[in-house]
Amino acid sequence: MNDRLERQLRFILEIDKLKTVLRQTVLTDKTRRETDAEHSWHIAVMAPLLREHAVGEAIDVDRVIRMLLVHDLVEIDAGDAFAFDPKANEGKLEREIAAADRLFSLLPGDQAAEFRALWEEFEAEETEDAKYAAAIDCFQPFLHNAVTGGHTWKLGQVCRAQVMRRMAPVKEATPAIWEYLLTVVEDAVKKGYIREDA
Amino acid sequence: MNDRLERQLRFILEIDKLKTVLRQTVLTDKTRRETDAEHSWHIAVMAPLLREHAVGEAIDVDRVIRMLLVHDLVEIDAGDAFAFDPKANEGKLEREIAAADRLFSLLPGDQAAEFRALWEEFEAEETEDAKYAAAIDCFQPFLHNAVTGGHTWKLGQVCRAQVMRRMAPVKEATPAIWEYLLTVVEDAVKKGYIREDA
Repeated sequence: MNDRLERQLRFILEIDKLKTVLRQTVLTDKTRRETDAEHSWHIAVMAPLLREHAVGEAIDVDRVIRMLLVHDLVEIDAGDAFAFDPKANEGKLEREIAAADRLFSLLPGDQAAEFRALWEEFEAEETEDAKYAAAIDCFQPFLHNAVTGGHTWKLGQVCRAQVMRRMAPVKEATPAIWEYLLTVVEDAVKKGYIREDA
Repeated sequence: MNDRLERQLRFILEIDKLKTVLRQTVLTDKTRRETDAEHSWHIAVMAPLLREHAVGEAIDVDRVIRMLLVHDLVEIDAGDAFAFDPKANEGKLEREIAAADRLFSLLPGDQAAEFRALWEEFEAEETEDAKYAAAIDCFQPFLHNAVTGGHTWKLGQVCRAQVMRRMAPVKEATPAIWEYLLTVVEDAVKKGYIREDA
């Protein structure tokens, strides 16, 4: 077998592990937690659908899709850090960089560089593509909360300000969706799924 | 909320169900069967990685990725038909067309048409993009079989000719991968994971 194909197949088999990384978010039917692979698929489908609500004029949706498909790979080694648990997020970046070093180096050099660059761009959240990707990435679990009685909001006992901070990428990249999001938050505070700020 | 966003969100929540459709393929660690959403994610990552092994000159990998992300959505209603079970595949297309009618119609018209067209192109397997997508779609479970002692080959008690037929898209679209595949099949026949043809 040629060396490139061998490396590609090793990587492809290795990333199967993303199907074993559990997030705190539950499926909309609440039967179980979703996996990182499922989350990555879901947001990759959402990206083209919601693009019209994004303010970024130069967004390349296909690049955003590729970014979203690989953005969580580092969690194979680093694990999924619950967004509303500050302790779980300590040292996160260092763990993820070590994971990126190991995982992407399985690939042929050019493809390793390409995947790494996409992941780094996502993490930096500076380009229009990365800002839109970040908005979709945090809006999906928000949507799940909206239809599951605030599952992870209750789990993290979060207050309104925490949710607003976490959802800042939506406000910046997709203001029309932010408007909708505010109504959901208002309702969730009323129902006690999100605590009112002290 | 504007009507388009409302329809898009309804669709996005509906397709969460793809995470509950189980395939016969098991994860590489054999702990459980994978879901359609996980499979869709995996092949969407594979498509750009293996493109260099495809013969189609005009393949648009980003279109292939979009095709792979939506190709199994119809299984939300129609279920996953085990490739090596002829009975399970009876009436499959009719069930899937009904599913496509229901699911895609949740979306605004332009997006419904776009998703539907991608799905129909995938099913027809006539364009270079669709042929390459089909190759990746059947090569992923093949790879899983290669590292799990032929899990679904044993389950379906399949013979060599059945595997060859099932993998025909790989032969046509990605001959370099086909060469590798033949060595795996040879080994699997020796080990008794695949039955020798009568």
